[in-house]
Amino acid sequence: MTVQTALREYFEDLESPNEQSGTTHLLDDWHVTQTHWDLGTNRAWEGLLTQGNGYLHLRASFEEGLLDHPQNVEYERKMESVTVEVAAHQTTRQGVYIPAITGEHPAVRETVLNLPWFADIRISADGEQFDMAHSDVSEFSRTLDWRTGMLTRRVRWTTRSGAVIDLVWERFASQDNRHLFAQRLHTEVRRGHPRICWQSAISADVVTNGHRHFPAISTGASNDAIECTVITDKGDEVSMVSRVVCQTPQEASSTHFVTDTEAEIAWEAVLTEGQSGTLHKYTALTTSRDGTIDPSLSEDSLKRAYDAARDAADAGWDRLLAASAKRSSAAWEVGDRADQTSLVDVPHLRWATYHLLRCTPAFQGITQVCPKGFAGEAYYGRYFWDTEIFLFPFYLLTNPLAARGLLEYRYNTLDGARRNAREYNCRGAKYPWQSGTDGDEQCPLWEYADLELHVTADIAYALAQYVNKTNDIDFMWDRGVEILLETSRYWSDRVDWDSQGVPHLINVMGPDEYSPMTRDNAYTNRLVRFNLDQAIRWAGRMEREAPETWSELTERLGFRREELEGFAKISDRLPVPYDPERKLILQSADFEDYAVIDIDGIWQDRTKPFGFYATHETLYRSRCLKQADVVILLTLFPEEFDDEQVESAYEYYKPYTVHDSSLSPAAHVQVAQRLGKAEDIKEFVEKMIAVDFDLSRGGAADGMHIANCACIWQLADAETPS
Amino acid sequence: MTVQTALREYFEDLESPNEQSGTTHLLDDWHVTQTHWDLGTNRAWEGLLTQGNGYLHLRASFEEGLLDHPQNVEYERKMESVTVEVAAHQTTRQGVYIPAITGEHPAVRETVLNLPWFADIRISADGEQFDMAHSDVSEFSRTLDWRTGMLTRRVRWTTRSGAVIDLVWERFASQDNRHLFAQRLHTEVRRGHPRICWQSAISADVVTNGHRHFPAISTGASNDAIECTVITDKGDEVSMVSRVVCQTPQEASSTHFVTDTEAEIAWEAVLTEGQSGTLHKYTALTTSRDGTIDPSLSEDSLKRAYDAARDAADAGWDRLLAASAKRSSAAWEVGDRADQTSLVDVPHLRWATYHLLRCTPAFQGITQVCPKGFAGEAYYGRYFWDTEIFLFPFYLLTNPLAARGLLEYRYNTLDGARRNAREYNCRGAKYPWQSGTDGDEQCPLWEYADLELHVTADIAYALAQYVNKTNDIDFMWDRGVEILLETSRYWSDRVDWDSQGVPHLINVMGPDEYSPMTRDNAYTNRLVRFNLDQAIRWAGRMEREAPETWSELTERLGFRREELEGFAKISDRLPVPYDPERKLILQSADFEDYAVIDIDGIWQDRTKPFGFYATHETLYRSRCLKQADVVILLTLFPEEFDDEQVESAYEYYKPYTVHDSSLSPAAHVQVAQRLGKAEDIKEFVEKMIAVDFDLSRGGAADGMHIANCACIWQLADAETPS
Repeated sequence: MTVQTALREYFEDLESPNEQSGTTHLLDDWHVTQTHWDLGTNRAWEGLLTQGNGYLHLRASFEEGLLDHPQNVEYERKMESVTVEVAAHQTTRQGVYIPAITGEHPAVRETVLNLPWFADIRISADGEQFDMAHSDVSEFSRTLDWRTGMLTRRVRWTTRSGAVIDLVWERFASQDNRHLFAQRLHTEVRRGHPRICWQSAISADVVTNGHRHFPAISTGASNDAIECTVITDKGDEVSMVSRVVCQTPQEASSTHFVTDTEAEIAWEAVLTEGQSGTLHKYTALTTSRDGTIDPSLSEDSLKRAYDAARDAADAGWDRLLAASAKRSSAAWEVGDRADQTSLVDVPHLRWATYHLLRCTPAFQGITQVCPKGFAGEAYYGRYFWDTEIFLFPFYLLTNPLAARGLLEYRYNTLDGARRNAREYNCRGAKYPWQSGTDGDEQCPLWEYADLELHVTADIAYALAQYVNKTNDIDFMWDRGVEILLETSRYWSDRVDWDSQGVPHLINVMGPDEYSPMTRDNAYTNRLVRFNLDQAIRWAGRMEREAPETWSELTERLGFRREELEGFAKISDRLPVPYDPERKLILQSADFEDYAVIDIDGIWQDRTKPFGFYATHETLYRSRCLKQADVVILLTLFPEEFDDEQVESAYEYYKPYTVHDSSLSPAAHVQVAQRLGKAEDIKEFVEKMIAVDFDLSRGGAADGMHIANCACIWQLADAETPS
Repeated sequence: MTVQTALREYFEDLESPNEQSGTTHLLDDWHVTQTHWDLGTNRAWEGLLTQGNGYLHLRASFEEGLLDHPQNVEYERKMESVTVEVAAHQTTRQGVYIPAITGEHPAVRETVLNLPWFADIRISADGEQFDMAHSDVSEFSRTLDWRTGMLTRRVRWTTRSGAVIDLVWERFASQDNRHLFAQRLHTEVRRGHPRICWQSAISADVVTNGHRHFPAISTGASNDAIECTVITDKGDEVSMVSRVVCQTPQEASSTHFVTDTEAEIAWEAVLTEGQSGTLHKYTALTTSRDGTIDPSLSEDSLKRAYDAARDAADAGWDRLLAASAKRSSAAWEVGDRADQTSLVDVPHLRWATYHLLRCTPAFQGITQVCPKGFAGEAYYGRYFWDTEIFLFPFYLLTNPLAARGLLEYRYNTLDGARRNAREYNCRGAKYPWQSGTDGDEQCPLWEYADLELHVTADIAYALAQYVNKTNDIDFMWDRGVEILLETSRYWSDRVDWDSQGVPHLINVMGPDEYSPMTRDNAYTNRLVRFNLDQAIRWAGRMEREAPETWSELTERLGFRREELEGFAKISDRLPVPYDPERKLILQSADFEDYAVIDIDGIWQDRTKPFGFYATHETLYRSRCLKQADVVILLTLFPEEFDDEQVESAYEYYKPYTVHDSSLSPAAHVQVAQRLGKAEDIKEFVEKMIAVDFDLSRGGAADGMHIANCACIWQLADAETPS
């Protein structure tokens, strides 16, 4: 299957949501309420309503699943698509993620794991299993409260036996004890006297991107507890223990069912008109990697899960919720920008902020934020440049400790970056295009891994932002300067010198991923110069202000002072292609060697990406930008370019830019703001909102576009980092 | 695993042969005799001594296999390596190929299948299984007779029980009845009175590149016949029937063993000093695709195999051999060039010719010649440009019907080429970089499939050679012009026009595969112009000379006469980059934008390819040629360039060319001859011989480099096509 065919299939699959019309949801300042449910948009809603607390994340799949859509189907996932990740087309995709828990996929390398499905709560009445697709359901609504993170679903169910039952599910991830997830199902009979069965399981019969990752699974049940421990294919242990309690008018007795992969507890009772029953499920999740957060958490994970689940059940719903809400409110205190003038309405701003807060890593320095915000498996939970360039301002301005954690992650994976550089016969450190646990390259496609170099310099940029804002000089001495020196060494080996003594970066993919092998990409070269300049500047300062640490560091790295002169030589001469006549920054020195194609003629339907119509072969040889490239550069160095230069670049690239990346509109808004282009601002803000929140285009089906969320947050008129 | 790591492992695996020294084989005018056997060079010898007859091919693996090296190991083959195909590292690789029988590999697409191992003959004495690696073997020799295709192996075996046994295996593929393979094992006891057991099986327990391809297998045995029929994963049927007869002094009775995947027949007898026994095995291979050769062969393949095996056994060894040898001699009559002055010695010339004759397709118009000459699975039995540019002269000059067959294959796969063009949103026909049964692209790597375009024009070149030489005008009217028009239409859509009205081919990989995305590759552009010119020329002639067929054709294709003007406009203007000052044809317009690297400094050991030391990332951004590029162009249009231009190009590219492709030295020899560079000629001829025949570098381990064989043949001083 070619990329093109894959893309066509992907979008054909999305046709059904297009057909659906009418109001599907209501927004207010603190809530979104889904008022209409259908199969076509189900997966998008699962992403949009993802819950979590930085430690664990849960897609908003229904507790009971969808009967026709099993979650254990194995399939072969390859990374063939270059534009759009083509995952298996599933109507529902349950997802439980703990960012630090990853596995090895045979074809696509390291991936965050979809962990056992612990949120399972099923209900049947008179032998009929409740299912959103098959049952007679009315009065559906589902509300996510952004402040508390509570997700509430209500339906009225008319059973085939004639009973009418009101069901209310509630659930939240505790912001107080991050290992905890609490659930409740309230069942009230309005008519009839159905025999009701409640079942609740933890199931390890799950796959990640079609692949099984648990070589060992153990399950058990006793009294009101069910448990499941898995060993991942990377040797990590994940334990889950649920306390499940069912209150009914008559004492109902529970039954256990335990298989190799599942542990289940069930109750049965007859409820008559007006009677109700409530099931509470308190699940604790622990892992063998928890010690990386807090050394006291390195002991037996199953025991810790047992204790936590018991304590939660003892404390009860209201106290757990209150404790969680208190923490949640505190986070909103600093994260919220709803009181500021904004280009975006309060509900969408808050919705985006909700996901940013949810993604704040609990594993400080061990994990970052994956581009899908741990609301899907599409990018395998890996870390890209998104963090440093797009997400960083949010964390830096609201939670400097979290921002520091993002940089600590890069320091902790510096050895992997060194190995990457060695793979290319270079000294120093080359950060991977796609980073996992160790900083080794996880991207299996050479055109990105080999060519999209800028991530390394982007990290230097974020580092400078951090220190400028926080003045955390110790961080520079302990970690930052080492990053700067090692990355600069890599650049020194990566440049090629021409016969005139000018260094070049040949065969580079800039942010515009439709131009893979260009010469002297302006964005990359400018950032590389910045990286080298920072190395020189901070090395000098460290030598003066912390001479002992400096000596230690340079000795450890075998770093000679003369290397700084080499850095300066490159920084002075590395070209940022520019045409003075047009005052135009050229995306690359060879940009105008590429073909001009009839973008408007080819792009028949703009609700689909341009890459749906043009082949990669065409995109690669044309002046066609997947996303902002020079335009991002303008936002990173706003004072370096005058308005004429900014205008010239903005207008020149606009007709060539197809915004097939979710990162593109955000950069354009910023520049449009500077240039006062009201119409463009409106257009691009709409595009930004549409990225996740337009259900007709798939949106968040495979996860939130969290970098775009961070840019939405920046649309509120607060101080921006410079 | 990166390409680099894979390469390192591959070459570490080849270390052992390097260590072995001394004479390993003797050559005379009609034979090669292997005098030394070791594990390290075993796989290379298996390739070098491959037998076949155009219908079937058999690697020279020992009849009994090697006990420690099972052939049914499953593994995951990916196409990750770009320079060197990294197959599983096996000491022995049994291979039975019928070119028309292919299957689907999950990762790498269509592949020729390794069929059931029918050549099995094992012997044990007093319970000790004979094995070349473990038995006490002396006086080993193995001789391939190029004229008859007979392979004879002799050993003296001293058993652990103290017996001394002389063994002689003989085998040949019949050149008379191409479905037949005949084998014989002569066993003579020199000392002792061992109890000997002969076993012979057909085993479908085999894999191709680590993957199983037979969803259905049936096996059987009766009297002296064993049989095996497999259904491939493409639905083809392959039947094999062996008649096995064992003559011993005392009548020995046979036993059958039949499992789901194997059918075996065995005999046991005690032989005393001076006694001998002879086993004959006549195997017939038939397939459900045989009807594509001859419609009378479309009936039940198993029955045909039964009949053929019975007839062979009835005819007996001597008559079969005589009939085969007669055909073989006739082929040598026209194929042999040993009586001509040659740059290569007669034995190597004949060895190469032997493989060329062996590869002459039996499936005329249905298969071509794969780059490994069906002596291995490394390139999946696919067809590349090798046929049209390198192999074509051999077939054209010795067997024009076979040459026509090669072109018929391209005509028969024109619909696939049309589908390929559609994949790129182009009209017309784009031949695939790697072609299989239907002409659809089989190469899973976009950098070749999308960018290495020249194969399409190479086919037009071969077509012109064919018609010039044979004057087979009917072929042009029936097939050739359609190919020319459709390919020209593709070029019309693939070129990009600049603002000066000049067409360009942007992002092209020429023959030099270390430069993937260049602008206006001289080789490609010149061949494209040729392709267009041929279309114009032959269209004009056809319109005049065969107006009715022309009308039919143009109507069927919806071809408008004006399209020819479009072809002319491109042909007139498509640049072949040239620097008049240096009289230098530039490989591409941007060739000198790439970096100059220190090739000598990087290339520490020239017995390994340069790609072993430099990363792909480096190769891709450097002036480093994997193989001849402009130099091939000089050989294809010798009269177009004067000696100064030829000299200029030859000397300019030589230091940049690392000859990591087996196709490179051949082109250089031709140009060195023209320029009278005696030393270079010597060096490149040695390189050509080394490609397959230097055992220390792996050589033919994964198959013969058949295009290089054809160039060796051309070293004999005969008329060359122009």
